Amino acid sequence: MADLNVNEARIRAMIEGLAQFTATPGAGTTRLTYSEEHRGARGFLLEQMEKAGLVTREDAVGNLFGRIEGQRPDLAPVLVGSHFDSVPNGGAFDGPAGVVAGIETAFAFQDLGLRPERPVEIIAMIEEEGSRFGGGLFGSRLLTGQVGQADLDTMADHDGVSVAQAMRAFGLDPEKAADVALAEGAVHAFLELHIEQGPVLEESADDVAFVTEIVSLTQIEVTLTGAAGHAGTTPMTGRKDALVAASGIIAGLPELVAGIDPSAVATVGRMSVAPGGANVIPNHVSFSVDIRAAKKEIVARIVTALKERLAALDAGGIGHSVAEAIFIPETPMSDAVFDAFAASADAAGIRWRRMPSGAGHDAMILSAITQTGLVFVPSRDGISHAPEEWTDYADLALGVEVIFRATRRIAGA
Amino acid sequence: MADLNVNEARIRAMIEGLAQFTATPGAGTTRLTYSEEHRGARGFLLEQMEKAGLVTREDAVGNLFGRIEGQRPDLAPVLVGSHFDSVPNGGAFDGPAGVVAGIETAFAFQDLGLRPERPVEIIAMIEEEGSRFGGGLFGSRLLTGQVGQADLDTMADHDGVSVAQAMRAFGLDPEKAADVALAEGAVHAFLELHIEQGPVLEESADDVAFVTEIVSLTQIEVTLTGAAGHAGTTPMTGRKDALVAASGIIAGLPELVAGIDPSAVATVGRMSVAPGGANVIPNHVSFSVDIRAAKKEIVARIVTALKERLAALDAGGIGHSVAEAIFIPETPMSDAVFDAFAASADAAGIRWRRMPSGAGHDAMILSAITQTGLVFVPSRDGISHAPEEWTDYADLALGVEVIFRATRRIAGA
Repeated sequence: MADLNVNEARIRAMIEGLAQFTATPGAGTTRLTYSEEHRGARGFLLEQMEKAGLVTREDAVGNLFGRIEGQRPDLAPVLVGSHFDSVPNGGAFDGPAGVVAGIETAFAFQDLGLRPERPVEIIAMIEEEGSRFGGGLFGSRLLTGQVGQADLDTMADHDGVSVAQAMRAFGLDPEKAADVALAEGAVHAFLELHIEQGPVLEESADDVAFVTEIVSLTQIEVTLTGAAGHAGTTPMTGRKDALVAASGIIAGLPELVAGIDPSAVATVGRMSVAPGGANVIPNHVSFSVDIRAAKKEIVARIVTALKERLAALDAGGIGHSVAEAIFIPETPMSDAVFDAFAASADAAGIRWRRMPSGAGHDAMILSAITQTGLVFVPSRDGISHAPEEWTDYADLALGVEVIFRATRRIAGA
Repeated sequence: MADLNVNEARIRAMIEGLAQFTATPGAGTTRLTYSEEHRGARGFLLEQMEKAGLVTREDAVGNLFGRIEGQRPDLAPVLVGSHFDSVPNGGAFDGPAGVVAGIETAFAFQDLGLRPERPVEIIAMIEEEGSRFGGGLFGSRLLTGQVGQADLDTMADHDGVSVAQAMRAFGLDPEKAADVALAEGAVHAFLELHIEQGPVLEESADDVAFVTEIVSLTQIEVTLTGAAGHAGTTPMTGRKDALVAASGIIAGLPELVAGIDPSAVATVGRMSVAPGGANVIPNHVSFSVDIRAAKKEIVARIVTALKERLAALDAGGIGHSVAEAIFIPETPMSDAVFDAFAASADAAGIRWRRMPSGAGHDAMILSAITQTGLVFVPSRDGISHAPEEWTDYADLALGVEVIFRATRRIAGA
């Protein structure tokens, strides 16, 4: 049995409380940035933070902060939290689990009468999902100075409302957006808890995972070009069917990846077939390939092997082109924070494992300015971004306990 | 050298004359039914028919007829022709080649002063492509009584204009549409010349082909169901990726078909992948499969083999459903007309081969009420339904000569 300072019932009440602020009651959490649901969740979070004894503030773009003053207020604070927006019809845990972990950490500090050496700031960030304005990790990118003032006017939602217009309507001043950027050294460390969004922890004997790195990722767009023809009058021999060629490539992808690194992943999620008539041989097929691995060198090897297979299609009269849409090298998490997680878990009797993160998180962005650590808790059936998203509260509490204990270690309390 | 009665220059002039009636000058032939281009082509065709000594009429739906009176006017006529509409940005030969073959046959009768025993009627049919109202083979289906009066109100173009409204605007009376249906026995035979729309004749040593049957055809819609998941957080093992499964099926289709009948064809021309995000494992994939073979039993064997492969996906957690959108058994052409073609070609020194037709044609529909024959002429590079569609006029003249000679044999002149 793990030895817990955090309160599972309070964690549950906060998750359930936040889940009420949804535009789609009965159909999951839909909480878009600068919406009425955002406004409701903001009020709820500030209230919880105040109950936990925190001094609260909202920055110029809407990120929420709650501070436990340090014995040495001049020291850079330890930042703890995650995001509080959601995808459309998402779940109650992606984002909120990490925000609640931060607030519950503050409650535990209050319960135990702890006064840390360093300040501790609980943070709830906006627009991580990019569901309203299309740019993911927006709140943390603003905090790290990666968003230009002009972007606030050019980025817009489906109704054409720009970020700046939406900020004004929400009561914020977009002219001050640049002020939120944190200088390097302004934060001592960032600790985030997040749901795994995959099945690994659930299938393992471990309670939680500590992320070693956010994986390297590339997304490429492959286009194959063959020759169109009438489905009835063109014999099978001599066809240059771009879809048959693409299918061979896609069907072979799992085995190609497994041969290079069994922990790497490759996914074709988007595909278009032209001209698209049921009785016309396709002459143009485009598809995305999302490739992720712990190191960028492995991603590059998979891309090279894929390009070799594409080049081999030339012999059958199928041309190809490959365009790189995204390339991101791996982002290592901090060894020091990892060690604090490990020592905390061991002390509390919580079973843990190391794991790369296949998805990007705010911790990835904040690692540009500070040491970061990321704790995963299990996702039932690996499901996320759906109303069915679920983490048992007992499991979530174990993750929060690690966050609390590691915060105490790093902040000195 | 073949011994020709027909006139290549006159054939060419008629093809080029008709090609001027296009809504897309410089970008192929676009001649939709009941359009201004239709009206222009109608005038041109009636003028040519009159020059060839034919007595012309337009039926209630716009099909054009030109009659050579028989010595026995009471006998059912031999019908010769094809359609004169086009696909958008199509070519100058698909349809017109057969209409011109009919009119040139009449010119040759006139040149030689022939008076057939049976009447001969040259026909130019409407809306074979279905490009305006979506229902293919519409002119011939009207002639065979396969279109109900209500269809004229329900079938509509992209602007919502119904067939009946378009008829009225063109100066026709949709109330009389049913009158155009020909009774069984009202036509002695139907002879059609058409471009092959495939590469077989061009690659062969033969001049023309006589169609043995229009192939049996089925179009099925396959839907595969897997499980969605995050592309970064779901390990490759244990995925239920509907697109990887579909790709295996499609990549294996050519070999599956070749194992059953090397002359059969199967084509996946339309595909949709959902949810369609580059970073989401697809859980729903739907695709069409168009399968054609000389006999319906072969089509059925291919469908059965495909269903076995789909059923084998269950073991990997991929569900499937199959819906039959279209099933058409093969349509044999008339042996008697085939023999008339063969005797005519042999007499003229024209090299011929037998061939099934992988595409549907008006002859397929008219075979419901009369004996039919279909002559193919070569398509350069197998291309059709494109501005590049081309048949050398010398090759076309050989096909027209066969039509002329066979008409003469069958009509008795």
